[in-house]
Amino acid sequence: MPIVELHVLEGYKPDEKQRLADAVTRAVRFVVPAAPELVTVMIHDMPAQDYYRGGLMRQPAAARPDPAEIVRKFLAAMEARDLDQARGMLGEGFRMVFPATAPMTTLEELIDWSKPRYKFVTKTYEGFDAMQGAGDAAVVYCRGTLQGEYHDGSAFAGIRFIDRFEITDGKITKQDVWNDMAETRMTTAEGAV
Amino acid sequence: MPIVELHVLEGYKPDEKQRLADAVTRAVRFVVPAAPELVTVMIHDMPAQDYYRGGLMRQPAAARPDPAEIVRKFLAAMEARDLDQARGMLGEGFRMVFPATAPMTTLEELIDWSKPRYKFVTKTYEGFDAMQGAGDAAVVYCRGTLQGEYHDGSAFAGIRFIDRFEITDGKITKQDVWNDMAETRMTTAEGAV
Amino acid sequence: MPIVELHVLEGYKPDEKQRLADAVTRAVRFVVPAAPELVTVMIHDMPAQDYYRGGLMRQPAAARPDPAEIVRKFLAAMEARDLDQARGMLGEGFRMVFPATAPMTTLEELIDWSKPRYKFVTKTYEGFDAMQGAGDAAVVYCRGTLQGEYHDGSAFAGIRFIDRFEITDGKITKQDVWNDMAETRMTTAEGAV
Amino acid sequence: MPIVELHVLEGYKPDEKQRLADAVTRAVRFVVPAAPELVTVMIHDMPAQDYYRGGLMRQPAAARPDPAEIVRKFLAAMEARDLDQARGMLGEGFRMVFPATAPMTTLEELIDWSKPRYKFVTKTYEGFDAMQGAGDAAVVYCRGTLQGEYHDGSAFAGIRFIDRFEITDGKITKQDVWNDMAETRMTTAEGAV
Amino acid sequence: MPIVELHVLEGYKPDEKQRLADAVTRAVRFVVPAAPELVTVMIHDMPAQDYYRGGLMRQPAAARPDPAEIVRKFLAAMEARDLDQARGMLGEGFRMVFPATAPMTTLEELIDWSKPRYKFVTKTYEGFDAMQGAGDAAVVYCRGTLQGEYHDGSAFAGIRFIDRFEITDGKITKQDVWNDMAETRMTTAEGAV
Amino acid sequence: MPIVELHVLEGYKPDEKQRLADAVTRAVRFVVPAAPELVTVMIHDMPAQDYYRGGLMRQPAAARPDPAEIVRKFLAAMEARDLDQARGMLGEGFRMVFPATAPMTTLEELIDWSKPRYKFVTKTYEGFDAMQGAGDAAVVYCRGTLQGEYHDGSAFAGIRFIDRFEITDGKITKQDVWNDMAETRMTTAEGAV
Repeated sequence: MPIVELHVLEGYKPDEKQRLADAVTRAVRFVVPAAPELVTVMIHDMPAQDYYRGGLMRQPAAARPDPAEIVRKFLAAMEARDLDQARGMLGEGFRMVFPATAPMTTLEELIDWSKPRYKFVTKTYEGFDAMQGAGDAAVVYCRGTLQGEYHDGSAFAGIRFIDRFEITDGKITKQDVWNDMAETRMTTAEGAV
Repeated sequence: MPIVELHVLEGYKPDEKQRLADAVTRAVRFVVPAAPELVTVMIHDMPAQDYYRGGLMRQPAAARPDPAEIVRKFLAAMEARDLDQARGMLGEGFRMVFPATAPMTTLEELIDWSKPRYKFVTKTYEGFDAMQGAGDAAVVYCRGTLQGEYHDGSAFAGIRFIDRFEITDGKITKQDVWNDMAETRMTTAEGAV
Repeated sequence: MPIVELHVLEGYKPDEKQRLADAVTRAVRFVVPAAPELVTVMIHDMPAQDYYRGGLMRQPAAARPDPAEIVRKFLAAMEARDLDQARGMLGEGFRMVFPATAPMTTLEELIDWSKPRYKFVTKTYEGFDAMQGAGDAAVVYCRGTLQGEYHDGSAFAGIRFIDRFEITDGKITKQDVWNDMAETRMTTAEGAV
Repeated sequence: MPIVELHVLEGYKPDEKQRLADAVTRAVRFVVPAAPELVTVMIHDMPAQDYYRGGLMRQPAAARPDPAEIVRKFLAAMEARDLDQARGMLGEGFRMVFPATAPMTTLEELIDWSKPRYKFVTKTYEGFDAMQGAGDAAVVYCRGTLQGEYHDGSAFAGIRFIDRFEITDGKITKQDVWNDMAETRMTTAEGAV
Repeated sequence: MPIVELHVLEGYKPDEKQRLADAVTRAVRFVVPAAPELVTVMIHDMPAQDYYRGGLMRQPAAARPDPAEIVRKFLAAMEARDLDQARGMLGEGFRMVFPATAPMTTLEELIDWSKPRYKFVTKTYEGFDAMQGAGDAAVVYCRGTLQGEYHDGSAFAGIRFIDRFEITDGKITKQDVWNDMAETRMTTAEGAV
Repeated sequence: MPIVELHVLEGYKPDEKQRLADAVTRAVRFVVPAAPELVTVMIHDMPAQDYYRGGLMRQPAAARPDPAEIVRKFLAAMEARDLDQARGMLGEGFRMVFPATAPMTTLEELIDWSKPRYKFVTKTYEGFDAMQGAGDAAVVYCRGTLQGEYHDGSAFAGIRFIDRFEITDGKITKQDVWNDMAETRMTTAEGAV
């Protein structure tokens, strides 16, 4: 039964409102075990001339972009090795950690690190989870499986991975990657014995 | 500036309302880039006698428990090898995947799998991310580092891990685990060469 | 989906709120074809110290009694020939019309009118419809069938009737009665031929 | 003092809102004895993009037509013996009862029944009462007097009648009729003796 | 933290809403010691077709003009000795009192009174305070200093004054004036001794 | 018709709410020319556990005291020459100006200034006007007439005065006084000639 009324400054687009309604509905259901169709969200658009704080009119800030969309585009650019586009999506202080690596700050470091490991790798997505963090960063999780080819020409597939991103002001500031590649190779190697 | 009014049936406790306010505030900030202190949440408690749907009074459902708390307790029980308590926290259809394992459905399978790998392992937490999924399950991510001892008596520490849990009706129904253990051992082994 | 918020001065009892919620729900559905369970009514009780008109606090008026209940009691008193109780339920300017009678203003007139017609009559109720009229009077319709005994000792039953009442300030001010008694007797008589 | 806020999906026309405001005002006054001018109704039109249930946008259903208007048109068509138009206003399962008749389901049955009774009859309306019933049907009462001519050429007038209609999805599904015709004739006949 | 929602009939202009928001913000801060930027005012414009009192639509009344603006214009007209314009700004029953004068009702009386006192006088404004009184009149205070020339050719300046105006229906109905002119002259005279 | 909803943290006392309702009603009527009885103010008390800003619970600040009441008490203390009590009501940076005086900062300066002017003086109040200023100070105007006795034993009465006070955090920080005393004496003196 929860009924949510959202008063926001006029100016958000339908898809932004849809994202807002969706996020708020899930936030309510995080605590209140109501069926989704019993959670009502009403957005009250306030024209600037009808909203005052301290007696002053205020302007609405542009909506934050969808962080999951940003992650999708970044991963696609990386897969296509379009480093220029990918680099343009990184924010100040960007920092990434891959399995057992020290923090890296440039995409080139990552390329160097991955070069000896496989010829190429692509991702099959299983799911995205996105939420606002406690601070200004949104957090996006992306998981699925990797497939590709090792340098010895052998193919691999179905290797589980998960990426965790932080997005601030529409830019990626943090990426953490885990996957089963080493475990898989080790297991395969042992199995091969 | 967003102002959120939440109408809920009376009965939620202060800590449940706090969680609700926190989740809704973050949901709003997922789309609207307002500073946290500009997001106001007002909860309007509706006594049962003041709320009607279809002309009928309704009863509030008990709040969902905090899924991050459930995960913390489960992980503590597992670390303490208190399998009885841990098992009691699992829901119907529970299923877990560890690095490169097939899906397991009992804790015993996990114990068997881990036995040859290390004497013991404990976790240092770096962060939890929790949110409601699209369906009825809440999703909890927990990440940090592992430390412990291998069977050869050597110690390990600082190995990154991430767990993803799904919690439905207060029970854990899914656990997915990734970590750098294999990668670390492989790197160490190579390094040892 | 209609959501109704009712702000009233604190003081109405649960059954009065229930009647209010019910009446408002039906009022909404009179125009909006929503399923009943999609019509939400929230009553916001305003303590006297929180409600001001013209800067002055106001006191809530006692709820109007349920007019259908008043009609039921009146009809029961009449059936039991408890004229004192029935008379006590009549308001200033009471006026009643029975089939083809001139307006009557006292219960005694009615008794006199009915005396030659039947020994006694009782009512089986089929339905009540109650609503607020355009002015201060509530309107209650009561319909069903009559059974009883004529002066020749023959019984009758299943004769349709409908009564229309107006109730103002908790008192009955108008009663209009229609039934098929004459038509039935006429038909029976003709049939008897 | 009651203040009513109605949140509905945008799309209702001014006359539909007027009917809504009127019905809700009367519903409130059915329980709260406030003077009409102290009952405020505010309709908050929600554009589809601002209203979500279960995170999904919803479309408003077209308003129900005014059932009293439907009854007026039906009675006019019947008086004009425009059976085609009248028939088009009847819903599935239509059923009508006239004084001492068995239930009839076609207008032709009614015509046959009335034929021996009078040459023609017209209605003078005294009042309509309309409300939503407990279910999906609206209930309309119409009362007044009949005038016309008997087969012997004598005229009649001022004979009280009341009709009760049920209207579902804009169609008449039930009509119940009571009047003083038999009583009047009987009285007249007796008086003639 | 106070959040104010104002429901008004649609039709007020942005500058009128700004004045309304400003007045309401100050009214709230008269009692609640919140920082101005923590007082939010939301104006909900109600289109005429969405607002009903007693089931009837209502029309918004034109906003009252800004009474401080009226006072400014009046004082400017008086300073420019544009008596026609000034006179047009006076309401029924206008009445003014200047230092130690009896009540005057025409501007001519004032001119006569001031003639022997100084050749001319102009005002330097230090501040305006405007508010709605308990009744229909707005109250405007205007204070500052006078400068001008006496009939002996000597100049004066920096003489404190305060005017109190009442404005009803956009017209000035009362003016009360105090200043230090006599005190200043007396002091100067004494000082001169 | 304006309807005002005020959401404040729970904790204000009935007389504080009454002052709030009164101030807000007048603020609305400053712009909207509605009759007082058509301005409705509803205060929604928010328990601390139901109100969050930035996801944090907030505590209500104590209401500001009634500044007109403070002024009344101060003037009474001054009239009674209870300088200790009066001094206790002055705030940091207090500053007062009397007719043609330089700014004074202590009550003793005022006493010295007034000593040669009259034996004693008391006030008859005609009206108070109080409002919140643009900043943190409330402004209180007090006007009426002075009566008392000059040093020559002659009495005076009916001399108009007006005081303007600023009150910040419950303390008087500014007093400006105007009156007709000099004008009156001058006029009397001239008249005496």
